[in-house]
Amino acid sequence: WGERQRTNAAATLEHCLRWMHHVGWIDNFRAAVEGRLPRDRRGREFSDSDVYKLIEAMAWEHGRTGDPGPDAAIRELTAIIAPVQEDDGYLNTAFGRPGQPGRYSDLEWGHELYCYGHLIQAGVARARTAGADDVFVTIARRAADHVCDVFGPDGLDGVCGHPEIEMALVELARYTGEQRYLDQAVAFVERRGHGTLADIEFGRTYYQDDVPVREADVFRGHAVRALYLASGAVDVAVESRDDDLLDAVVRQWEATVARRTYITGGMGSQHMDEAFGDDFVLPPDRAYSETCAGVASVMLSWRLLLATGEPRFADLAERTLYNVVAASPAADGRSFFYANTLHQRRRGAVPAADTDSPRAASSMRAPWFAVSCCPPNVARTLAGLATYLVTAGPSGLQIHQYADAVVSTHLDDGAPVGFETTTGYPHDGVVTVRITEAPGTPWTLSLRVPAWATRGGVLVEPDGRRRPVEPGTADVHRRFAVGEVVRLELPTSPRWVAADPRIDAVRGTAAVERGPLVMCVESPDLPAGHEVDDVRVDAASAPADADGTVTVAGSYEQVGDASWPYQSPASSSGTRTPARIPLVPYFTWAERGPSTMRVWLPTLTPEGGPADEHT
Amino acid sequence: WGERQRTNAAATLEHCLRWMHHVGWIDNFRAAVEGRLPRDRRGREFSDSDVYKLIEAMAWEHGRTGDPGPDAAIRELTAIIAPVQEDDGYLNTAFGRPGQPGRYSDLEWGHELYCYGHLIQAGVARARTAGADDVFVTIARRAADHVCDVFGPDGLDGVCGHPEIEMALVELARYTGEQRYLDQAVAFVERRGHGTLADIEFGRTYYQDDVPVREADVFRGHAVRALYLASGAVDVAVESRDDDLLDAVVRQWEATVARRTYITGGMGSQHMDEAFGDDFVLPPDRAYSETCAGVASVMLSWRLLLATGEPRFADLAERTLYNVVAASPAADGRSFFYANTLHQRRRGAVPAADTDSPRAASSMRAPWFAVSCCPPNVARTLAGLATYLVTAGPSGLQIHQYADAVVSTHLDDGAPVGFETTTGYPHDGVVTVRITEAPGTPWTLSLRVPAWATRGGVLVEPDGRRRPVEPGTADVHRRFAVGEVVRLELPTSPRWVAADPRIDAVRGTAAVERGPLVMCVESPDLPAGHEVDDVRVDAASAPADADGTVTVAGSYEQVGDASWPYQSPASSSGTRTPARIPLVPYFTWAERGPSTMRVWLPTLTPEGGPADEHT
Repeated sequence: WGERQRTNAAATLEHCLRWMHHVGWIDNFRAAVEGRLPRDRRGREFSDSDVYKLIEAMAWEHGRTGDPGPDAAIRELTAIIAPVQEDDGYLNTAFGRPGQPGRYSDLEWGHELYCYGHLIQAGVARARTAGADDVFVTIARRAADHVCDVFGPDGLDGVCGHPEIEMALVELARYTGEQRYLDQAVAFVERRGHGTLADIEFGRTYYQDDVPVREADVFRGHAVRALYLASGAVDVAVESRDDDLLDAVVRQWEATVARRTYITGGMGSQHMDEAFGDDFVLPPDRAYSETCAGVASVMLSWRLLLATGEPRFADLAERTLYNVVAASPAADGRSFFYANTLHQRRRGAVPAADTDSPRAASSMRAPWFAVSCCPPNVARTLAGLATYLVTAGPSGLQIHQYADAVVSTHLDDGAPVGFETTTGYPHDGVVTVRITEAPGTPWTLSLRVPAWATRGGVLVEPDGRRRPVEPGTADVHRRFAVGEVVRLELPTSPRWVAADPRIDAVRGTAAVERGPLVMCVESPDLPAGHEVDDVRVDAASAPADADGTVTVAGSYEQVGDASWPYQSPASSSGTRTPARIPLVPYFTWAERGPSTMRVWLPTLTPEGGPADEHT
Repeated sequence: WGERQRTNAAATLEHCLRWMHHVGWIDNFRAAVEGRLPRDRRGREFSDSDVYKLIEAMAWEHGRTGDPGPDAAIRELTAIIAPVQEDDGYLNTAFGRPGQPGRYSDLEWGHELYCYGHLIQAGVARARTAGADDVFVTIARRAADHVCDVFGPDGLDGVCGHPEIEMALVELARYTGEQRYLDQAVAFVERRGHGTLADIEFGRTYYQDDVPVREADVFRGHAVRALYLASGAVDVAVESRDDDLLDAVVRQWEATVARRTYITGGMGSQHMDEAFGDDFVLPPDRAYSETCAGVASVMLSWRLLLATGEPRFADLAERTLYNVVAASPAADGRSFFYANTLHQRRRGAVPAADTDSPRAASSMRAPWFAVSCCPPNVARTLAGLATYLVTAGPSGLQIHQYADAVVSTHLDDGAPVGFETTTGYPHDGVVTVRITEAPGTPWTLSLRVPAWATRGGVLVEPDGRRRPVEPGTADVHRRFAVGEVVRLELPTSPRWVAADPRIDAVRGTAAVERGPLVMCVESPDLPAGHEVDDVRVDAASAPADADGTVTVAGSYEQVGDASWPYQSPASSSGTRTPARIPLVPYFTWAERGPSTMRVWLPTLTPEGGPADEHT
């Protein structure tokens, strides 16, 4: 992740800024001041929000390294944005001017509150990394006050078509201690599900206005909307000590994880409405699995982890970080996946370098999209990634995610405590934690043992004692001395995984995982003349791992076209060439030019077709 | 089909007319005359076309039975429409008035030429059933002349975002003998694929403006658009004796049938853009398979059959008629499927009786849709169905589709010839053809032996001789006498069908067909406590047929939720209750209230999951 963060800082932030200038989203603010709106407005109605997301990413990056570059960029953007804010705090380049729709005239699709949400989240990030007096923070606070004025108890009884404001207001309430922001967040969460938004073609389910948050059974509708709302609901529940609401979200999370989540952690299977499909409808080839839904799922998992302390939430966050969020940006940080298919059947075209691309049109990452929420969303996630690693509680420290890290904090009693983590994770399962500061009294260091580490995990205590660990949490409680080492050894030999038999779309297939990584077959690794769709695997034979190069036993099967593809089962099934099939981590695919790829591999044995009725 | 036609006449035509009044599509024409547009316009930009489709259905119905009802209705509608036509022949309620977009200002989405296409097809139907002097025919001709004026050699170099005008102009050229109409159709077909339309989010592929018709390899993009265009191209090819163009369409049809067609004959798997998916992407649960695409596929198959005489085209038409077109209308002819899923996982709500429904929101047929192309499209297909049954050629008559029918025509030399067909098709495979008129010279009666009749088909000649027949065509060449009988006996015992192994979405499943009918499992037929998704079948055991009640051996399997649905293959797979599983014809489903249904049934043996790597 360190390398990812460096690339994010060195390439992605500048890349996003350049594109936002190029496509005019930053100029929209200038045009507002210069009276050139609506004539000169470019981008979708929510384009302001992407500028704010980028500012949030820059704020975390500035806080992470102290690099003055992002700080200067934020100041520059602040100067452009500030004059657009109106006297009452209203701030949006798409509404309210002559020739534009009126303020809050289209809560369904207008995204005004959504834009404030990102503005406020960016404001909180800026406040936490540059102080409360920063001009951008002031803008965000004024916007929040405006929202409370307009949508408060005596105001408009509405919610935004796209949740996001809820968690932003709670974050601001946490930072400022202002009860008013929390109250407004509570109001938005409670109002939703009562049909104040219109019944659109996709139904009110699309924006979760079909069922109140605390009554719903499962996440449904537009995936990013559903997950942002759930995140906001957890924030509200935690700050209001509302266990019923928290339990409701946990219940929905459980049902969604059990029935509506891809093996990568990806959520939202439908392209049409970017929505969760029905239970168990998880087609790999038509997976939408939007990058932003992955980011949102990580945000939600993290909140649930903080609220409950349960490692299952960190497990899903890990899976989603490695197999959705990390899959989106290219290694160079300058192109992105918007949708994250699990099965690419055709080589796509190389996306345009200078114009924005459709969301899911190619087999390759694109530099920018007409709706380009994903690049800055990934950027802010990577810039703020450090916050996901470790928590401190009354009895000690808990490590939830493994990466090279230096941690220095204090226990509840104020005693300083610190450690350094070094690991080759995820390629290698060994995590070494060396104590760098110790209070002299006993405390507990907790390490998450991932759910995938079902067998062979070992914890090595400072005294050299090795003890087997099971998925969950492994604790070491002792009076640590500086320099002592705790080592977690997790088994990363590749393993077969089978899907719930109710996931029809992957029946008769198996996938390979290695540590937290989902593996895939990609065309550049196959011999000439063979395609990923020719691959048949022998799942009775364990995958092999030669220094990280994973292969499985199988065959390439070639099938000719029948004039009609539905025949008596007696029909033959083509020719098979036995082979060892190479696999690579899913998140690394599509870095070698247009390619084909698949995660779920049809199994060779047993053969499977029904028998001929005459045999 | 006779019963379907009677229901169509007695219920569907009146149902469509009532709804078109109810939703204001007919009033749009009145509003145009009264100067109430655009203020009072209702419906989508193409709503005029549905009124024309209904007129076409009424025209064929009037021609079929001579019933004065549809004739009167056409006259009434004609009186409403006629005054809207402008002096230069232009006719559209959505464009060209103050406050409306300008004529032909939006060829991508405006559907103006598409509306003319339906107007002209309706005009030809009217001309063929009521004569060329009818007022409606005159309207259609004036519109066609207008199109040729505006889009002719010196006019606008454009095509319509939705093909349809092409085949309409050829049909009009055939009826009138006017070369100009054919030339214009040729121009539209040749212009397409050169990117005159904008590059929209779905790409130019959506409206087949990506590749010229004669260079394409497969049908792609929006399914109805692709199939209407192909139909127009066949019409053009036949009338221009352009074998290259015909071959190109045949090649595309072959690739589409081999790789992009559901077992029902349904085409277009994607909900998002109502489009063909990639090769072999045919998810049953997310099947869009629009009714109109089924209608369009039948239109295309019929044209290809006429152009080539090859029974494979009649085979697909049969499959599509029984399993897509017939599935759309309810038995009472007053509600319809727009999309035709092959796997319904949840019971839907009962659709609203008085407001239009979304396209694919329920498990039940709906009385009307906001975009309601399908009901009148089915109506015109059923009203004109007789034309699909039989052709006459130089050497005799060919029967392509089997239904009770009385045929009276003449051979090329003018000699009268006729027969009566009686059959219990599709439930029963016996077709009896009794000669009712005979010229006294030898001629050939050809009967299609469907592709599904791979074993056991028998033709009984007039002299009682029985000979086995193979899929293709069975000919009887003789000097027929009046009263002689030819009998075709086709095997309708139910049979297992397996899919091409490249159709990932149905791997590890099998389906049952009986005669031309695709069968399905539907929840009302299952014991309490079991759902269609519990069904596992033993495809090694032949399906049973007790007087048309089809069952297969299998089990109900119940699986509990895992906290995470992707596990080591060792995990158990639930409990199984052996049973005989009942099936019903797919086209009859959803007539008994909200239900669940599936066509592709997971096979019990072999079990399938990959082995545990430690065993």
